[in-house]
Amino acid sequence: MTAGPPPRVGVVGLGLIGGSLARLLVARGIDVVATDVAPGSRAAARDAGLTVADDVAGAVAGRDLVVLAVPLLAMRAVAAEVARHLDPGATVTDVGSVKGPVRAAVSDAGAGDRYVGAHPMAGTERSGFVSSDAGLLDGVPWAVTVDARTDPARLAAVLGLVTGPLAGTAAVLTDDCHDEVAALVSHVPHVVATQLLNAVAGAPVRDVALGLAAGSFRDGTRVAFTDPARTEAMVTENAAWVAPALRKVARDLEAVVEALEANASVHEFFHAADDVRGTWLPGRRAARTGDVERVPLEGDWPAALVDRCAAGAVVVRLTATHAEVAR
Amino acid sequence: MTAGPPPRVGVVGLGLIGGSLARLLVARGIDVVATDVAPGSRAAARDAGLTVADDVAGAVAGRDLVVLAVPLLAMRAVAAEVARHLDPGATVTDVGSVKGPVRAAVSDAGAGDRYVGAHPMAGTERSGFVSSDAGLLDGVPWAVTVDARTDPARLAAVLGLVTGPLAGTAAVLTDDCHDEVAALVSHVPHVVATQLLNAVAGAPVRDVALGLAAGSFRDGTRVAFTDPARTEAMVTENAAWVAPALRKVARDLEAVVEALEANASVHEFFHAADDVRGTWLPGRRAARTGDVERVPLEGDWPAALVDRCAAGAVVVRLTATHAEVAR
Repeated sequence: MTAGPPPRVGVVGLGLIGGSLARLLVARGIDVVATDVAPGSRAAARDAGLTVADDVAGAVAGRDLVVLAVPLLAMRAVAAEVARHLDPGATVTDVGSVKGPVRAAVSDAGAGDRYVGAHPMAGTERSGFVSSDAGLLDGVPWAVTVDARTDPARLAAVLGLVTGPLAGTAAVLTDDCHDEVAALVSHVPHVVATQLLNAVAGAPVRDVALGLAAGSFRDGTRVAFTDPARTEAMVTENAAWVAPALRKVARDLEAVVEALEANASVHEFFHAADDVRGTWLPGRRAARTGDVERVPLEGDWPAALVDRCAAGAVVVRLTATHAEVAR
Repeated sequence: MTAGPPPRVGVVGLGLIGGSLARLLVARGIDVVATDVAPGSRAAARDAGLTVADDVAGAVAGRDLVVLAVPLLAMRAVAAEVARHLDPGATVTDVGSVKGPVRAAVSDAGAGDRYVGAHPMAGTERSGFVSSDAGLLDGVPWAVTVDARTDPARLAAVLGLVTGPLAGTAAVLTDDCHDEVAALVSHVPHVVATQLLNAVAGAPVRDVALGLAAGSFRDGTRVAFTDPARTEAMVTENAAWVAPALRKVARDLEAVVEALEANASVHEFFHAADDVRGTWLPGRRAARTGDVERVPLEGDWPAALVDRCAAGAVVVRLTATHAEVAR
């Protein structure tokens, strides 16, 4: 296993995430060709100085690493089109917010052996190339997902890009672990934010409420101002993990209601996460202060990374011989 | 009804809100004497240049307007102590996040006829005088609450302070309207944020989840990092309005779970608030672009303001003869 030259990258899809990724890669000196189905997005990307192909073939042929950055609902069709033009030695990855269904789409397209899943944990409530920004994905945590047949060289290519030019960290996870985590920290919060907004929108006191709404409502509903179609797709694609997590939320809230109505204590509910309050601050990521472990890129090293990352570690650097893993 | 000289203000309680209010009033040239039960807070306030009394009597006697700015759980005892020292012509108000229970406490203390409720719609997840800041309450929307026996002159004193030196707007509401709205835009969002944090804190994948949590989780749980005891008090004090609103949230979420499990459409859920999305932006308050109506301070003008504010209007300015009301 040796770290080769930086990959030539193809980016398919120039929305908020694809556009931000292409901008950041180019800023870091990577050779990128991008495309988008919308002529307007292609023109805007050209105006921004990106190299843009007119179709998927032009952004895929001759590329070492192709990133699917299209909406989840378009992933299956685009994966099939990408597979038609993909070089045999190339790697396919993506930036989708669910991983199991994307792997299934790429596998069904015949490129499952060349796929490594990826998901940058960053975003905004805006969308489209017009909102893209090289800073959005600079130095953010990524989830990178594997299964038993993942090619270690291809995993190394993705980890090298994430921890190198993109200056990020990578949690190497199974698709299921990612999708369960994404349900908890992203998809369920999106549903709940939508519900908070719906509750006010449908209330008789709506006009007074919107006039007086302050910080807690603004932050609690921020992601409900995301394009609702995008949120709906994300949630339904990951329904297998969202449904049980959301059911627990609904039942726990119902238990709070019952306690309030019975004048019973809700002390336990409000203090259940006190240990997290003491260590994890919103907006400030937990400092990775533990020792860095060097995991040799030998044997089934992807499985060794999955073990460590399932316990909260992340890959912070990839050398020709080792992955550096921090707690 | 004439606008008199600015009132001499007493502030009882120098936490985040009381401290911020005292600092802002002093910055606007108002004569303020403040106090707090904690010697450390009193010393810090003196160091910050405030005039501080050693006890409640010193912050109440001779004051025209006394603001109760203590935690909800302390409100009943402090209201009784304040009532003992209050001048007959003075007005009592407060900054509590529920209004019905505070009015009951002040009435039981014998000062209900001198009370006007108030609640500034601003805050942070921090607490204590150390976090107080004159900017926190500068120009924010307030709810000001009345009942059938509210003295119009005392309401005018509070409205004059809010829309004058404090540069804010005031929605004049009944206690019930305020408490229902506060449940929807603040208390239920606090409970839901707590639940999102609890769900991750108790999950087997907790360490991975906290490592990957990004914007949607950070914003969705921000207020869960408020002092949980303060949140618990706010929610239990307003249980009468929180319980039914929270039950609707829990049931609506359960319906989403059932739809997801049945592969049924959740389109309606994600689009139910589309009209609000088009007009109300998080972090950007709806512009008050409608005509300003001048409501004469004659007859039962408090009731006239309640009528207008229940439909979403707010008082933006008080003159000697009129309240200016904007939609």
